[in-house]
Amino acid sequence: MFKINSLLTAVTLACSVSAVNAWDALPREAPAPADNPTTPEKVALGKMLYHDPRLSSTGTVSCSSCHNTMLGGEDNRPNSMGVNGQTGGRSAPTVWNAAFNAVQFWDGRAESLEAQAAGPVTNPIEMGMKSWDDVVARLNTIEGYKKAFADAFGGNAISKDTATKAIAAYERTLITPNSPYDKFVSGEKSALTEQEVRGMNKVAELGCTGCHSGPAFNGPGMFQKFPMHSNGMYQAKYHFNKDLGLAEVTKKSEDEHKFKVPTLRNIALTAPYFHNGAVKTLDEAVKVMAKLQLDKELSTEELSDIVAFLNALTGEFPEQKMPVLPPTPGTTFN
Amino acid sequence: MFKINSLLTAVTLACSVSAVNAWDALPREAPAPADNPTTPEKVALGKMLYHDPRLSSTGTVSCSSCHNTMLGGEDNRPNSMGVNGQTGGRSAPTVWNAAFNAVQFWDGRAESLEAQAAGPVTNPIEMGMKSWDDVVARLNTIEGYKKAFADAFGGNAISKDTATKAIAAYERTLITPNSPYDKFVSGEKSALTEQEVRGMNKVAELGCTGCHSGPAFNGPGMFQKFPMHSNGMYQAKYHFNKDLGLAEVTKKSEDEHKFKVPTLRNIALTAPYFHNGAVKTLDEAVKVMAKLQLDKELSTEELSDIVAFLNALTGEFPEQKMPVLPPTPGTTFN
Repeated sequence: MFKINSLLTAVTLACSVSAVNAWDALPREAPAPADNPTTPEKVALGKMLYHDPRLSSTGTVSCSSCHNTMLGGEDNRPNSMGVNGQTGGRSAPTVWNAAFNAVQFWDGRAESLEAQAAGPVTNPIEMGMKSWDDVVARLNTIEGYKKAFADAFGGNAISKDTATKAIAAYERTLITPNSPYDKFVSGEKSALTEQEVRGMNKVAELGCTGCHSGPAFNGPGMFQKFPMHSNGMYQAKYHFNKDLGLAEVTKKSEDEHKFKVPTLRNIALTAPYFHNGAVKTLDEAVKVMAKLQLDKELSTEELSDIVAFLNALTGEFPEQKMPVLPPTPGTTFN
Repeated sequence: MFKINSLLTAVTLACSVSAVNAWDALPREAPAPADNPTTPEKVALGKMLYHDPRLSSTGTVSCSSCHNTMLGGEDNRPNSMGVNGQTGGRSAPTVWNAAFNAVQFWDGRAESLEAQAAGPVTNPIEMGMKSWDDVVARLNTIEGYKKAFADAFGGNAISKDTATKAIAAYERTLITPNSPYDKFVSGEKSALTEQEVRGMNKVAELGCTGCHSGPAFNGPGMFQKFPMHSNGMYQAKYHFNKDLGLAEVTKKSEDEHKFKVPTLRNIALTAPYFHNGAVKTLDEAVKVMAKLQLDKELSTEELSDIVAFLNALTGEFPEQKMPVLPPTPGTTFN
């Protein structure tokens, strides 16, 4: 069905939207890497692991604690709260449509969902496990996991590699299609209001789509410097510059303040905003972005048109069954 | 179907189990109070509230964080971890089949699920909200909740009263029927092994069912003194006496160390054990109970028979859809 979107999109654009760039609907399926094809067994296992707080040292924090699959894929907090009430310096990115990110984490240090999934589990302020060996040892005491891993990967399969593959396979199913925007670019012209269409045009005209383009509004480049333009007031208020971004990983001066371009999908659901969660509302975030990245002051009307359009990027959340997590009858780790 | 259980049970017992007391299967439905009849709209709303971390001050702790509906209805920790990593002195009781408890909390201070639901939300070390007025104010900023409360209760309905009623209505659906025990007492004699039947007889013979009887193995009395018999070794090891139980509420000396009789349903899934979560395994918990309540030492065989029977009280968990929590587009509390 979505194979014909480009054509429909082109037709639609000719009528109502300035064709600065292609407007793509969100694919219904995410591509999987060659060494981790998506299977129902992996997805079922990954869903259990993703929601299992026993992957944390205290048994209180699961992936879903900070990347909440019942909300907008994160926790609506400036910084997430890991084990023992600890907080870090960055805001949790949404897991919804993360499968369409070219790189993961704010600093892009993971090249795949698989690599990303390995990180928080052993981060001392996130899930706090001492090592993946400890995680594997713990999972090996849960009979139901032994079976689920064998079903998904065959044999005696519990390892860091298979656990992160299963989590990534599940995350590839977390896609939110059918936003008003998607319907619009698929030919349903009444799906967007006039104001939302104005916002869509404005986003292209101003140049937001220079970085936020493609079906997930997070490409084509992987990284972008932020802020591009210095601004004393915003710096004093939001302290964006404290975080060096990619340079925290590469230690290269040319990578300072480079961040992964985040998706705009469901952006209305993921306040507060920016890598440090310093900006509480979407209105303010758009204003700040226009100033710091494009050196532009938005009029009140432009701002409300753009925010209206961004709200139209909220998709439909797939119905999910709650996993029943396999027990350790008669005993506990904790 | 379950209306004929008593008859079937009586027949079964005559064959294989000493008829010290009636053996009842778990009802499929929990009775609701006259002022809170269960409706699908209340259950849907209650399910959202139950899983919503925004009912806590930090936005990180939902009812399900400690009473996990994906696990055995609690968190498998000695003491739960509330907001900002705080812990209290008691172990979270399971929410599964809590609808069949005559009273709630370990000290029985709540007479209904509705009254119980009001407590943790404003407990400073659990969910940490300053007041229910604050909770109601927060819920009122979430459009989706306004609608869901109106659907469930009509009109401008968000209040402590309606929120706790909805949560209780949802909890009344959290029933785990069809354990091997239930099948056995409903006539399916092959549902229990010989060892499990021996354990069932032993539980009656020893007198465990003096307190743990009825379909949820938590009646007929509401409270029981624990420990009944003093034991220096266990006291030194597990510190059971530190908690005064009911007397913490009533301040009466005759209520000291009285606790709600907990259900034995799914007991294999709710380690660690006792009000303070001090005992890590079910084997040890049974041994301790026999000694402290009945002044009996169990043989190795008796112990393993009883534990086998208790494992046969693990029921079937109903399939649940994950709630999609209503958003606050473009903003956040946190």
